[in-house]
Amino acid sequence: MNFLSDNAAAACPEVIDALVAANVASPRAYDGDAWSARLDGVFGDWFGHACTVFPVSTGTAANALALAAMVPPWGAVVCHADAHIHVDECGAPEFYTGGAKLLLAAGPHGKLTPAGIDAALGGHRGDVHQVQPRVLSLTQATESGTVYTPAELAALGEHARAKGWRVHLDGARFANALVHLGCHPGDISWRAGVAALSLGTIKNGGLSAEAVVVFDEEIAADLRFRRKRAGQMPSKGRFQAAQLLAMIETGAWARNAAAANAGATRLAQAAPQRLLAPVEANELFVNLGPHGGAALRAQGFDFYDWGAAGSGEARLVVAWDTPPAQIDALAAALAALA
Amino acid sequence: MNFLSDNAAAACPEVIDALVAANVASPRAYDGDAWSARLDGVFGDWFGHACTVFPVSTGTAANALALAAMVPPWGAVVCHADAHIHVDECGAPEFYTGGAKLLLAAGPHGKLTPAGIDAALGGHRGDVHQVQPRVLSLTQATESGTVYTPAELAALGEHARAKGWRVHLDGARFANALVHLGCHPGDISWRAGVAALSLGTIKNGGLSAEAVVVFDEEIAADLRFRRKRAGQMPSKGRFQAAQLLAMIETGAWARNAAAANAGATRLAQAAPQRLLAPVEANELFVNLGPHGGAALRAQGFDFYDWGAAGSGEARLVVAWDTPPAQIDALAAALAALA
Amino acid sequence: MNFLSDNAAAACPEVIDALVAANVASPRAYDGDAWSARLDGVFGDWFGHACTVFPVSTGTAANALALAAMVPPWGAVVCHADAHIHVDECGAPEFYTGGAKLLLAAGPHGKLTPAGIDAALGGHRGDVHQVQPRVLSLTQATESGTVYTPAELAALGEHARAKGWRVHLDGARFANALVHLGCHPGDISWRAGVAALSLGTIKNGGLSAEAVVVFDEEIAADLRFRRKRAGQMPSKGRFQAAQLLAMIETGAWARNAAAANAGATRLAQAAPQRLLAPVEANELFVNLGPHGGAALRAQGFDFYDWGAAGSGEARLVVAWDTPPAQIDALAAALAALA
Amino acid sequence: MNFLSDNAAAACPEVIDALVAANVASPRAYDGDAWSARLDGVFGDWFGHACTVFPVSTGTAANALALAAMVPPWGAVVCHADAHIHVDECGAPEFYTGGAKLLLAAGPHGKLTPAGIDAALGGHRGDVHQVQPRVLSLTQATESGTVYTPAELAALGEHARAKGWRVHLDGARFANALVHLGCHPGDISWRAGVAALSLGTIKNGGLSAEAVVVFDEEIAADLRFRRKRAGQMPSKGRFQAAQLLAMIETGAWARNAAAANAGATRLAQAAPQRLLAPVEANELFVNLGPHGGAALRAQGFDFYDWGAAGSGEARLVVAWDTPPAQIDALAAALAALA
Repeated sequence: MNFLSDNAAAACPEVIDALVAANVASPRAYDGDAWSARLDGVFGDWFGHACTVFPVSTGTAANALALAAMVPPWGAVVCHADAHIHVDECGAPEFYTGGAKLLLAAGPHGKLTPAGIDAALGGHRGDVHQVQPRVLSLTQATESGTVYTPAELAALGEHARAKGWRVHLDGARFANALVHLGCHPGDISWRAGVAALSLGTIKNGGLSAEAVVVFDEEIAADLRFRRKRAGQMPSKGRFQAAQLLAMIETGAWARNAAAANAGATRLAQAAPQRLLAPVEANELFVNLGPHGGAALRAQGFDFYDWGAAGSGEARLVVAWDTPPAQIDALAAALAALA
Repeated sequence: MNFLSDNAAAACPEVIDALVAANVASPRAYDGDAWSARLDGVFGDWFGHACTVFPVSTGTAANALALAAMVPPWGAVVCHADAHIHVDECGAPEFYTGGAKLLLAAGPHGKLTPAGIDAALGGHRGDVHQVQPRVLSLTQATESGTVYTPAELAALGEHARAKGWRVHLDGARFANALVHLGCHPGDISWRAGVAALSLGTIKNGGLSAEAVVVFDEEIAADLRFRRKRAGQMPSKGRFQAAQLLAMIETGAWARNAAAANAGATRLAQAAPQRLLAPVEANELFVNLGPHGGAALRAQGFDFYDWGAAGSGEARLVVAWDTPPAQIDALAAALAALA
Repeated sequence: MNFLSDNAAAACPEVIDALVAANVASPRAYDGDAWSARLDGVFGDWFGHACTVFPVSTGTAANALALAAMVPPWGAVVCHADAHIHVDECGAPEFYTGGAKLLLAAGPHGKLTPAGIDAALGGHRGDVHQVQPRVLSLTQATESGTVYTPAELAALGEHARAKGWRVHLDGARFANALVHLGCHPGDISWRAGVAALSLGTIKNGGLSAEAVVVFDEEIAADLRFRRKRAGQMPSKGRFQAAQLLAMIETGAWARNAAAANAGATRLAQAAPQRLLAPVEANELFVNLGPHGGAALRAQGFDFYDWGAAGSGEARLVVAWDTPPAQIDALAAALAALA
Repeated sequence: MNFLSDNAAAACPEVIDALVAANVASPRAYDGDAWSARLDGVFGDWFGHACTVFPVSTGTAANALALAAMVPPWGAVVCHADAHIHVDECGAPEFYTGGAKLLLAAGPHGKLTPAGIDAALGGHRGDVHQVQPRVLSLTQATESGTVYTPAELAALGEHARAKGWRVHLDGARFANALVHLGCHPGDISWRAGVAALSLGTIKNGGLSAEAVVVFDEEIAADLRFRRKRAGQMPSKGRFQAAQLLAMIETGAWARNAAAANAGATRLAQAAPQRLLAPVEANELFVNLGPHGGAALRAQGFDFYDWGAAGSGEARLVVAWDTPPAQIDALAAALAALA
């Protein structure tokens, strides 16, 4: 029973159907097809703001491309110390940006705050001997399974703008956050000052398409060339566009995220005393105690240890297609742990 | 009737079937699945040589990643002046390599020769004031629709090795070349000294997977990290691996290439006097005369002009799924041109 | 007798004196000293236009830094096929720019023309599959020892601006050009649309300081950080600033260039029939015939062969401090060649 | 009275004399002169080990070039959180390496220890999703004015080698460390496993030359081209070589460092209770209390605050040429602080 991650789940039927439907003979290549032509409009309507949509093949590419179009090589990206862009992308942001630095800030439960940012940069100078922060990169839902409220994001956006920084949002689990909040997509993107969003679909039931959604034309003009140059412009672009359209137009994004979130909530309710952070999306971070991990694995549950070796900490992730029976079984097993 | 390119054709049924079959719930992510695990073995058997296979999402990414793992930033890649890596990748090789140069050589019908390479580098010095050639990049089939024979490739490989260069092969249309030659895949890759091959499937009936096939462990060890860092390691890696396996294991590579090549040959036979280069794969480069292009377009044929404006030159490409009736129609129209 | 180059000549007394005068105890580091503080003003007065001056240690650094601040990584720099930035800088422009391409144009005697530029870019497209020209880089005096007139430069500048390109000038021998023309420094820089100038002093009698002179504040704001990041901001900045100031304020630039130019003219007059290009600065490109080079070397003259092996072509360079007796000797030897 | 830094002090007479002596007419350019030719031999004798010496114009260039030749772009450099390469070089290491990361470790008084390194990398994984440490960069003397003993360095070197890492030493104040230890230069370089050393002379009485000293031929072969490509190969290379030779051959390195160290020791003895770290080179880090800084400045002493605002912490640096009377005055003032 797989609670390792949501990133290898099946693709949902809506996406498979869309791929098959897009498998027509020889339209124009790259973004010259009818699916690609509809992207900006469909996403613009969904977000309630004009935008440019750049399909890419991975979340790492989405993040790195977006950042590269937002920060000069001598600049810096401020992010949480747990941010995926820092921890799990093999330096892709540094590669794509031409060597910009990530400056790490801390904050509880994966969330940054204006005060935490200021503290992290307390001694940072504006002279030429130091890289200069130009972008704030936030993750929604966070790497700790929590979700920024629109007000929290807006405050961070305002804080960034006051410093002349642009805001990037890593939305690998944007749908999960949106379902949790029940708000409008614009409330946690452009209305909060986000200029570019890495919008994930793969963890949300997609197959091979993520999107960079850009709300700023200057960034989009630059990103257009960087995407091709990065080898992220497939000749059969309709297959990416069709996946992205299907997620939005069929509402799969919401159904899939709701299912995953509900599963995580179900697990959280079974072991509230073990939670290391509020469960607001589809991930749980728990302390299983010294023997809990082994006990669960002995019952067939698969998941990642987290935190320091021997800490007893673990991460449990529910995907859109995790069988309810497996969720029930894990909930029971968690409740039964000594 | 679309003769623009083979790069937007439909995906073949074998690939669609493989994608659907790979759509199972939650195996291990990245390359931890059963499909990815079989890649090196299946391709190793096909090539008759141990290799490491890296799936990527575009041919540009395949080329740029391979080159980056083969050349230092202060090095140079020798290639044909018409090479895709120079002309159509928005500087991806320069980006991925950290700014290595492409040094351009000439040769008839898109083919390089040892003498042509030496001529191009005649005045090149080995001192620190100039970038140093370290890689020879060839294209098979070439950008002119011709095909290197195994003997030609072997001579080029030997020429490169004698200078201490590695050999890269851009095989966006490798299958078309292989079908034309009727030889073993190893004859135009590792046996000719090729260390890394960009093996295209997308123009050959694939959907979204190309491969870098590496015959040199040192290159593979480096490329492994560069691929992730480039955002070219999808979490649902099985969907790429399954496509690549399907192309080889079902023999689709050969059927599709044979169909495309045969169509091009059919067209060539209809207008032999118009050919600018031998037709050895699935592309024709023709001179349609001052009015021929317009005449064909008036009959509903779509294709790209080529060469200098007003030259009357054009490119006609046949895809694996170009309808035979359309090929017949174009053959007739070509034959009927004044 | 050394006619190899002007790039290893002695430093002139004005520069040595300035270095010694700047050797005071512990002013502020970097650019916090009194010498550095005067740079922008002194050069601004000289050029007749506000500018920002960035001292650097080599001409290669000057060129590469200037270009990096002017072109995006997916952009291109149009330059002459003989340009130093292409031929003799080991890919420094590609390194500093993050992999921008140099697009090569041709023109007689090392000079570009609007028509030559357009011809070179005839087939270049504006789509995302190709790098986009954003900078025109010219060399004054050229790599062939010729000099653009103010009118020629202005026409090129206008041609570039009409395309939305910025103009960079490699002025490794700017002083030689200026003395030849007898015009105002502004006439061959900002008045002709030059946004950034690599102003050489080292070939003109300097010791270790070149300057990037920037007439555009946006470029300067970016270059400031790139310079430090490149390791081109010495802590004892006054020693670079003092050299640059000395060259301008003492008039050494003009005296030294005049001496070198006069020597070259003297040689040119001795063998007018051998010239491959007009001699307008301090370099001669000559054809010495099949045995001329050996004959001169047998008499103790040292110089570089040029052009293709066996062509009989050679380059003769006069430095600011080449002894007049040696120039006389070479003039006589040239005249006496069969 | 300037205790800001040693990095803007005068150049010592030995260096000025060497520059003047090297100001001869037109030897061969770049490294073709007699001074450059002696570098490897003189430094090899001094270190007791064959080495390749690359003169550069700044310490930042020395560090960044050395690291670029030692780490792949997807690699990481482990260094102290206070390291100059992380804090004060505007991202030069990231630029030169093509985006490698710096991974920060902690340790008291600016020193790393094997245990501190292991703690910092406790959770670091070897998979492709994370950058891979390949270099350990240490600073000698450290950023806290302390000095690694040969045994400490050897233990760190052994620790690094056991992991397959190379060792880089930032020796901006190498001479100060060497004088403090009274050991052989080899004891704190190659004997401790250092493969490449940034050897500073500028803070030690030099004018404009630092050196990268490489004890590993593979690194040197790569660095040779990177140096030119970085714009760090001056045409009048003899002026850099002459400075480096003068520092070693006249013994100025030792005299100058001894003078600076002695001054710092004198100050330390005047206020031992204020020291934040042992004073082992020419820098003091002190806590001046809430009003001490202002009191000293009122008496005409200039220096940098250090640490957090309001902490009362300050840095006092003695240069080779700081007037003894000023040192006496500061010592008295320190002793007299409440």
